[in-house]
Amino acid sequence: MSVRVGVFGATGYSGREIVRLLRHHPRAAVAFTTGSEKGHLAHEKGLEQAADAYMLALPHGIAAKYAAQLRAARPAAVVVDLSGDLRLPTAEAYKKWYGHDHASPELIGKAVFGLSEHYREELQGAKLVSNPGCYATSVLLPLVPLLKDGLVETDGIVADAKSGATGAGRSLREDLLFCEVTDDFSAYSPGRTHRHVGEIESVLLDRTGRSLELTFCPHLLPVKRGILTALYVKPTREVADLRTALERAYSGSAFVHVVDAPPRLSDVQETNDCRISVHAAASGRAVVFSALDNLVKGAAGQAIQNLNLALGWPEADGLPSAFETGAPVGARA
Amino acid sequence: MSVRVGVFGATGYSGREIVRLLRHHPRAAVAFTTGSEKGHLAHEKGLEQAADAYMLALPHGIAAKYAAQLRAARPAAVVVDLSGDLRLPTAEAYKKWYGHDHASPELIGKAVFGLSEHYREELQGAKLVSNPGCYATSVLLPLVPLLKDGLVETDGIVADAKSGATGAGRSLREDLLFCEVTDDFSAYSPGRTHRHVGEIESVLLDRTGRSLELTFCPHLLPVKRGILTALYVKPTREVADLRTALERAYSGSAFVHVVDAPPRLSDVQETNDCRISVHAAASGRAVVFSALDNLVKGAAGQAIQNLNLALGWPEADGLPSAFETGAPVGARA
Amino acid sequence: MSVRVGVFGATGYSGREIVRLLRHHPRAAVAFTTGSEKGHLAHEKGLEQAADAYMLALPHGIAAKYAAQLRAARPAAVVVDLSGDLRLPTAEAYKKWYGHDHASPELIGKAVFGLSEHYREELQGAKLVSNPGCYATSVLLPLVPLLKDGLVETDGIVADAKSGATGAGRSLREDLLFCEVTDDFSAYSPGRTHRHVGEIESVLLDRTGRSLELTFCPHLLPVKRGILTALYVKPTREVADLRTALERAYSGSAFVHVVDAPPRLSDVQETNDCRISVHAAASGRAVVFSALDNLVKGAAGQAIQNLNLALGWPEADGLPSAFETGAPVGARA
Amino acid sequence: MSVRVGVFGATGYSGREIVRLLRHHPRAAVAFTTGSEKGHLAHEKGLEQAADAYMLALPHGIAAKYAAQLRAARPAAVVVDLSGDLRLPTAEAYKKWYGHDHASPELIGKAVFGLSEHYREELQGAKLVSNPGCYATSVLLPLVPLLKDGLVETDGIVADAKSGATGAGRSLREDLLFCEVTDDFSAYSPGRTHRHVGEIESVLLDRTGRSLELTFCPHLLPVKRGILTALYVKPTREVADLRTALERAYSGSAFVHVVDAPPRLSDVQETNDCRISVHAAASGRAVVFSALDNLVKGAAGQAIQNLNLALGWPEADGLPSAFETGAPVGARA
Repeated sequence: MSVRVGVFGATGYSGREIVRLLRHHPRAAVAFTTGSEKGHLAHEKGLEQAADAYMLALPHGIAAKYAAQLRAARPAAVVVDLSGDLRLPTAEAYKKWYGHDHASPELIGKAVFGLSEHYREELQGAKLVSNPGCYATSVLLPLVPLLKDGLVETDGIVADAKSGATGAGRSLREDLLFCEVTDDFSAYSPGRTHRHVGEIESVLLDRTGRSLELTFCPHLLPVKRGILTALYVKPTREVADLRTALERAYSGSAFVHVVDAPPRLSDVQETNDCRISVHAAASGRAVVFSALDNLVKGAAGQAIQNLNLALGWPEADGLPSAFETGAPVGARA
Repeated sequence: MSVRVGVFGATGYSGREIVRLLRHHPRAAVAFTTGSEKGHLAHEKGLEQAADAYMLALPHGIAAKYAAQLRAARPAAVVVDLSGDLRLPTAEAYKKWYGHDHASPELIGKAVFGLSEHYREELQGAKLVSNPGCYATSVLLPLVPLLKDGLVETDGIVADAKSGATGAGRSLREDLLFCEVTDDFSAYSPGRTHRHVGEIESVLLDRTGRSLELTFCPHLLPVKRGILTALYVKPTREVADLRTALERAYSGSAFVHVVDAPPRLSDVQETNDCRISVHAAASGRAVVFSALDNLVKGAAGQAIQNLNLALGWPEADGLPSAFETGAPVGARA
Repeated sequence: MSVRVGVFGATGYSGREIVRLLRHHPRAAVAFTTGSEKGHLAHEKGLEQAADAYMLALPHGIAAKYAAQLRAARPAAVVVDLSGDLRLPTAEAYKKWYGHDHASPELIGKAVFGLSEHYREELQGAKLVSNPGCYATSVLLPLVPLLKDGLVETDGIVADAKSGATGAGRSLREDLLFCEVTDDFSAYSPGRTHRHVGEIESVLLDRTGRSLELTFCPHLLPVKRGILTALYVKPTREVADLRTALERAYSGSAFVHVVDAPPRLSDVQETNDCRISVHAAASGRAVVFSALDNLVKGAAGQAIQNLNLALGWPEADGLPSAFETGAPVGARA
Repeated sequence: MSVRVGVFGATGYSGREIVRLLRHHPRAAVAFTTGSEKGHLAHEKGLEQAADAYMLALPHGIAAKYAAQLRAARPAAVVVDLSGDLRLPTAEAYKKWYGHDHASPELIGKAVFGLSEHYREELQGAKLVSNPGCYATSVLLPLVPLLKDGLVETDGIVADAKSGATGAGRSLREDLLFCEVTDDFSAYSPGRTHRHVGEIESVLLDRTGRSLELTFCPHLLPVKRGILTALYVKPTREVADLRTALERAYSGSAFVHVVDAPPRLSDVQETNDCRISVHAAASGRAVVFSALDNLVKGAAGQAIQNLNLALGWPEADGLPSAFETGAPVGARA
């Protein structure tokens, strides 16, 4: 019998992707959805619905309130929050990066950070999971192993990231209109100002013990899905050692793969994969690329991966991968 | 009476753009075009045509041969070569970056490098101009003033560049088909392998006296026109001083402008402008963005700007700028 | 000295295009703009501004009110209304197609319909011009000459039209977000329900004396600019006679051209041109294609063309055409 | 145990899609692929490979030769030819529409036409299937039931079709380069000249007994996948009767669905669905829209559907549908 999953916010791009992916899940099925369109319950009505697990694809500031109520009302259920509300370790950090007080400070520190490959143990049996940001996932997957092993200097790391427009959500913003995005390209929140920086730096400290300040520049691509990040680092050993460390870190992983050529977005779109490549650069530097689908590994897919881990199921259940059958990659038109 | 310009290679994207721009030039007009379509002369026939100036929008390896023959046959004419053939200072450098011997080594060192804003004096009266690469222009315009004034460290500079698909030319390559480029994004020639690196490093040495190795990662955008480059640098003084230095360097420039927000491709598409912004980053670093249209300031527009300088005309004659009338920018749909 | 033009609604796509085009106009210049962004006056403030001509790029229902006030306050000025408010001949027709009562019924019948090529005489000296809809222009330019000469049957004419997304304006609608438009395509308002049908049928009656009901199906293209319409007609004579009639009708025209191959959007984008081709179809039918830029010939360009005519200036002043210099067409990348 | 399928031409878009879809098939698996890239056999080598079924995603003119050899060498195997080689009923018809003699005339008339919903009986146990063209499928699915029941007049039917660029295959043609397709739109082969017209007319005769000449105008959309066709017809009864007839014709179908609003490409992309809607038009006419994915229902998906029918399997096995679980449609970002 299927585990029943309630999806809050199923009219946004991430929520819709959760619904889409759960259709193919062997052990879980959608119990109900909330959203802004006909056929969906209002979010508040969702609180009255019984389910074994809840996915919160709601705006930050709102999600934590629902998480708190669901934990009180359904203590046995697994709650995965896809917003930024529970990603930071303290109320001060939240206020610094989000600009306002936290709505449910009692939840801070209660959630397991859902970077699946690096919090596997903590995720087993977890009742509250904070799903990582899409950019954060694309930076952390390559960077955590490199920093943990001390293979790159902590000073001066740069992440130049480019995301498809679903990353901005389905908001009615003029700058997201077709005629404003197509045939265009631009950077935003440059330097060290984007919210995901706080999340990245705090997880790096937690998993590697290294404290650093990250230069991070996100860009908006005229594509629907996908993030490609270029990490510029100064290795402390040979560039080849970086690759070896990454291969070792992900040797048992169904979804994170080290590849030879710089990965394309089309290699990972509509999959839960993250592909990483490592290349020598000038003056002993290196560039590390990571590519993932912001709606899958960067949101809905990783949320389901975390649900799988929380419930003790096979981690890859119901999740698409271009590596799954050894078939040639890039097979999507 | 108009100066007559012969355009070699007018069926490629750059050559076609030269023809398009010359239609609006007050002092110059197209004398003839060569190309691969009906109505164009074959390239060899172009050598027999009289003109006051010649633009060579031909592949590297071929362009220099035409330049040599035109110089012999029409010594009074101005020749602007848009290929990479005459950009490097020695035959050795050419072989290193292009992988084969130079076709006309006697021309090496004879051309003025056409980065208009930094070679204005040398360009006056020049008979042979080597037009810079599009990526090189996007990196050099922000970097030359910063290095000249010693405002950034030479070690560890990173240029993460993203270009529209016209930058690859009109070649019949599978990776340039619509279905391969649209809704996709990828890096290529990462590290220090792209040909424009040699050109950038040699011009930096020539104009600033600084020798350095540049990390340069180009990417292919699913857009037609435009390059946006993010330069990651370590300032030796305040970040604000970088902006001041750039404003001073381009205070008299019609086309290079320092702006507040990160420039968008649509700010510069179909203009000869380059827009630059400067932002603080983590740990005392800075990020400098530059945006230009690869077919205009990165190719055809700068070629005409160089022709204007060579003939002693007003530098901006016939060239589009979004700044020209003080009108609000971004006014193109 | 330049004629001074006030532009209402200069933050929308059409208004912005008027401002852009007027920069290159030899006899006219922008006096002021109104809009929703900093640097623009509020619309009401525009009523207090002196100018020789006013362009109303405002939503229907609002535009007519401004037209009425401007006519009262500035009787000598030329007013060109780009909305649908003054295109229909009666208040009843307006209510039928727009679904609400007309805001300024006293103006109905006072405006000259600005289909420049077919109302040239009436436009000379006109003080109030109603600029045609973009779809209407694309259907009327090929159809008026064919019907006037009785070359096609009135019964069963079909117009299958496809428009770029600027045609929908800069509205904050979810269906106009980048992620909803890109890589997609759809029809809307099929059959005989779109507002432009009323306008088309009434102009056909006025200019050709033929009364008919038009089947019209518009579609939304994932492109910024351009309308391509396929008209399916049943000729009463040879297909070649249709082409001849169109060539004759537009023999003196700067902007409307009959071509051999089906025109592409890129042939006409950013020009005031309309290109028409005629082809035999099955069972004695014919298909007639027309292509134009919805923001230029379909809006801002035709508005300026009408201003030129109203003021007795050369009709093509300040307006871009790919035919202007006999240069090869399709020269835009 | 899985049935083993050999895929010829697996580097083209259709062949690649067959491989992609077969990964999820419960009863079939890829035995080998041929193509132009590393890891694929050359096509000739494929002839030596044992398999239970063969899919020919090869150019017309070549495919029939392989079909003939496979039939001789593997008489028990099912061969599905996706090219146009076996779609026309006579060698004369082939020469008329394809412009050259047929390579294997002995095969003409031997293949079952694979329009699955209308040749179900013939397809059961078939050893040679000719898969329909993508445009033909989009026209025939709505038109066969309407003509069979005499619900529309045969004279004057118009099909205005728009296809994504994968429909043109992965050929190295300049007009298929990204910079030539993006932000553009155009018609080609207008009137009654496209090859699929011959195929459509002959199948209409075969299935409905009606002989007619079809006006057909295909267009190239700047999207990857999907065909939207508008059929303009003159009903002989009420427009509502057309819808009823289509609903009845496809009442048992897993993939063909009659819907209310005009279908979008995104409703059907990456599915084997075809969605049809019917709308009243002017003067008693009607417009019928059909939407499908040219690579799935228009090629690879229908090929697998035909394989399922030929082998007596459930028709929908392994094929994606947005209707499969009653889930909300349009759920893809």
